[in-house]
Amino acid sequence: MLVGNGYGKSAVRLVTVRRGPEIHELKDVTVAIRLEGDFETAYTEGDNSRVLPTDTMKNTVYALAADHPLEDIESFGLLLTDHFFRDQVASARVELTEHLWDRLHPHAFRRAGGERRTAVVTRTRDGARVTAGIADLVVMKTAKSAFEGFPRDRYTTLAETSDRLLATSVTAEWTYGRLDIPFNDRWSEVRHRLLEVFVDHDSRSVQQTLYAMGAAALETADVEEIRLVMPNIHHIPVDLTRFGLENRNEVFVATSEPYGLIEATLRRG
Amino acid sequence: MLVGNGYGKSAVRLVTVRRGPEIHELKDVTVAIRLEGDFETAYTEGDNSRVLPTDTMKNTVYALAADHPLEDIESFGLLLTDHFFRDQVASARVELTEHLWDRLHPHAFRRAGGERRTAVVTRTRDGARVTAGIADLVVMKTAKSAFEGFPRDRYTTLAETSDRLLATSVTAEWTYGRLDIPFNDRWSEVRHRLLEVFVDHDSRSVQQTLYAMGAAALETADVEEIRLVMPNIHHIPVDLTRFGLENRNEVFVATSEPYGLIEATLRRG
Amino acid sequence: MLVGNGYGKSAVRLVTVRRGPEIHELKDVTVAIRLEGDFETAYTEGDNSRVLPTDTMKNTVYALAADHPLEDIESFGLLLTDHFFRDQVASARVELTEHLWDRLHPHAFRRAGGERRTAVVTRTRDGARVTAGIADLVVMKTAKSAFEGFPRDRYTTLAETSDRLLATSVTAEWTYGRLDIPFNDRWSEVRHRLLEVFVDHDSRSVQQTLYAMGAAALETADVEEIRLVMPNIHHIPVDLTRFGLENRNEVFVATSEPYGLIEATLRRG
Amino acid sequence: MLVGNGYGKSAVRLVTVRRGPEIHELKDVTVAIRLEGDFETAYTEGDNSRVLPTDTMKNTVYALAADHPLEDIESFGLLLTDHFFRDQVASARVELTEHLWDRLHPHAFRRAGGERRTAVVTRTRDGARVTAGIADLVVMKTAKSAFEGFPRDRYTTLAETSDRLLATSVTAEWTYGRLDIPFNDRWSEVRHRLLEVFVDHDSRSVQQTLYAMGAAALETADVEEIRLVMPNIHHIPVDLTRFGLENRNEVFVATSEPYGLIEATLRRG
Repeated sequence: MLVGNGYGKSAVRLVTVRRGPEIHELKDVTVAIRLEGDFETAYTEGDNSRVLPTDTMKNTVYALAADHPLEDIESFGLLLTDHFFRDQVASARVELTEHLWDRLHPHAFRRAGGERRTAVVTRTRDGARVTAGIADLVVMKTAKSAFEGFPRDRYTTLAETSDRLLATSVTAEWTYGRLDIPFNDRWSEVRHRLLEVFVDHDSRSVQQTLYAMGAAALETADVEEIRLVMPNIHHIPVDLTRFGLENRNEVFVATSEPYGLIEATLRRG
Repeated sequence: MLVGNGYGKSAVRLVTVRRGPEIHELKDVTVAIRLEGDFETAYTEGDNSRVLPTDTMKNTVYALAADHPLEDIESFGLLLTDHFFRDQVASARVELTEHLWDRLHPHAFRRAGGERRTAVVTRTRDGARVTAGIADLVVMKTAKSAFEGFPRDRYTTLAETSDRLLATSVTAEWTYGRLDIPFNDRWSEVRHRLLEVFVDHDSRSVQQTLYAMGAAALETADVEEIRLVMPNIHHIPVDLTRFGLENRNEVFVATSEPYGLIEATLRRG
Repeated sequence: MLVGNGYGKSAVRLVTVRRGPEIHELKDVTVAIRLEGDFETAYTEGDNSRVLPTDTMKNTVYALAADHPLEDIESFGLLLTDHFFRDQVASARVELTEHLWDRLHPHAFRRAGGERRTAVVTRTRDGARVTAGIADLVVMKTAKSAFEGFPRDRYTTLAETSDRLLATSVTAEWTYGRLDIPFNDRWSEVRHRLLEVFVDHDSRSVQQTLYAMGAAALETADVEEIRLVMPNIHHIPVDLTRFGLENRNEVFVATSEPYGLIEATLRRG
Repeated sequence: MLVGNGYGKSAVRLVTVRRGPEIHELKDVTVAIRLEGDFETAYTEGDNSRVLPTDTMKNTVYALAADHPLEDIESFGLLLTDHFFRDQVASARVELTEHLWDRLHPHAFRRAGGERRTAVVTRTRDGARVTAGIADLVVMKTAKSAFEGFPRDRYTTLAETSDRLLATSVTAEWTYGRLDIPFNDRWSEVRHRLLEVFVDHDSRSVQQTLYAMGAAALETADVEEIRLVMPNIHHIPVDLTRFGLENRNEVFVATSEPYGLIEATLRRG
């Protein structure tokens, strides 16, 4: 018995250049489209008569980008879900990942690095829902981070610390209560608040800092809910006493595994 | 307002060797632990008194592996969730990924490649639930795959084809109705059924083949539900007419992006 | 002053299917082409009149694959260098990486995993040279590996061990003295010898095992020289005494960094 | 017969924090060490008496970092090669990759992204040699890039273009003629010159732009030679006429494979 299904196209790579008289605007986006709905006979009988090819979905991304200047990924996602929500489709979901470029010159750019801007737009009979986000914003603070007062059991060997490095790769996703808003401004404001609190917060744990960041983000207009995922990327002080040296909290091993993983969802009010 | 939270340790890398008189048994597993429950004051007040360190979770994985020979990842996951489900924990979830090795010799092994065996064990007040799985089992068939009869709109350029390459990276996750079963046998049987149908099926679409594979897997004892995710990894016939040559369906460009993504969940009965 | 230059096309993804009456033969290859020669004015003056577009190189790979059944990557590399070695080209170099598939059925295959077969063919005025190879063949032995008797200085903390896990990802490249040989047979024989020695060798160090493997490979007909690169992928015994437990050399942390890196080149005679 | 050998430790992950009264200085470096020399009996006889463990090399990196503030990776590489060049070592080579962080605050940082700073220091009996570099600096220009006037053969299908996107991931390595120089200043100046020319150059080909960038870099004091590797990351205009639309050079498919690969070495004088 088929109890759920979905299909679509992933990793559609779109770059647009808007050529103004003075400067060029560059957008670099990866798009994924996913449709759910009444496609059951495609699965059970091999009936393709309702299965819009995923190749057509790809073409549609490029065709709509030609007709509608890409101002922000949220609006482009709304345009795409609008297009795909028809006939037997119960839910059209578009995920957009924007690869950020810094401007070097009116016609030249430098790839900004690991951080990406994300959006998920979902349209059902109940309307559209927009989630904006940030992925892989890697930050570190070298002061004001402690982890003390935790419980110990027979397997606990971790030392308490009042001054550790705190590094994380922030992934944030937040939902807007309205759709007619300046998406670029809102995104920049949420990002600014997240960074500001990360930097300033006197952290007793990743959990506490995450919560403070989320609470600050919720003060941005139209943001109703935010989910934050913050891995704890450990930097372990090297035991230099083995070499007759002292580690004045200055020399660390950066580790990639294992890592702590902390997440929470906060809602306004 | 905190409406959800979870934390744990990810990417704990465990290798065990059981040294029998004749042969050695090797297990190579990556473990992730995630706890949910009443941790609210850690977020809101920086109170760590209930926050078992993720470092302790890591130690626990190694300590329990020393005491309990690792026969299958499902049982080890049950052991771990049993350990972590206590006090303020409402849900203990353990994800295990087994990196497979082929035996070369009683004491030597070759890494089997991309395919991995997976398990997710979740324990709440209602008991434990075991999901087993396969990830990244990449397969291709060079016959008995078509895609025809699909709808066309103004953006459709795809040609119908009665004989294409069908390649995918199978990810499957299925749930057992009981916990006292031979997990290794069940896993092997599901895997065997999935491959058998993939090979034999006269495919009108990825959807149809996925459904047939899932239906076959559900015939395995104790399997109640299965979710399959099968990207369509496109191999595009090269247009050789531009060079005065014919392509007898023999020369293809392998592409990594974009790709179709098909998924469905089937339940027994 | 320009003292060296080269250009070409990388990551050309070619899949061919030879459709016999009974079974299909699948080849999955990534090709890179690199030309050196008298291209100086392209660099210094922007004169493109001698610069065969890399797009044409890509097309050529597909066109030649259509005309010549791909039996082994070495022969296909010779065909390609033959084609590109002309006019102002002083050196045509083709690198080929074959992604291996195991046969499931006359028309179906399973991706074999991380291990790949490689070849580099270089053609200059002095003729062609063929190097065959293996990349990322990951193997582990759980017995007959020690590391003792090494020098110690003030920074040495490593314990001597008479029984450790030895894991590595073998990369091998060997050169043939002739070009009219059965490349598939030779490749299989070298691979067999490398694995056989890895398994059987009573290892005092990665260096010693690497040397023994190389020496065995050189016994294969037509192999003149072999280079082996074998990272030491460390598996560290967990100190379980902290938990009141004993580690009977059974529980290990698999680590990805840092890793030892051992390499050597052996020549026949 | 052993005709070459080397061994060492790779992927040593070092982070240092220098805690000034006002601000913290962060360095995040990956180090690889490689020794060549008279290690033959280790290979042929399993004699480890001269084989300094790679684990000791790793410890040495942390110990020396504790004693010597890490000002620039070139100086730290010189310190390390100085340490390891002794006894039977004929060549000590240290590769350093610095992961760049932007400052957010006196005690907080943001990972700068894909671009990295690199250095290779090699010490032999003839003294030390320092190569500095940049890896994966991804840049794009949306004007002043053409590719025309190239030769055509039967496999050429590429259209000439007077206005294309030019995107590349610059890898540069340059050698200094002296060792007593301000490495940070030199590095910044070379990087500035490379970017400046990339942006301003009226490009007829990647080759020509690469050459102009290299020539500019060679004007930096003490730079004797520079090697540049610049993949041509293709952005292909979408044929929108199939959908009754026009592409005003504004909508592109970003591709990851295949890619052109252009490289050259320039020497001063």
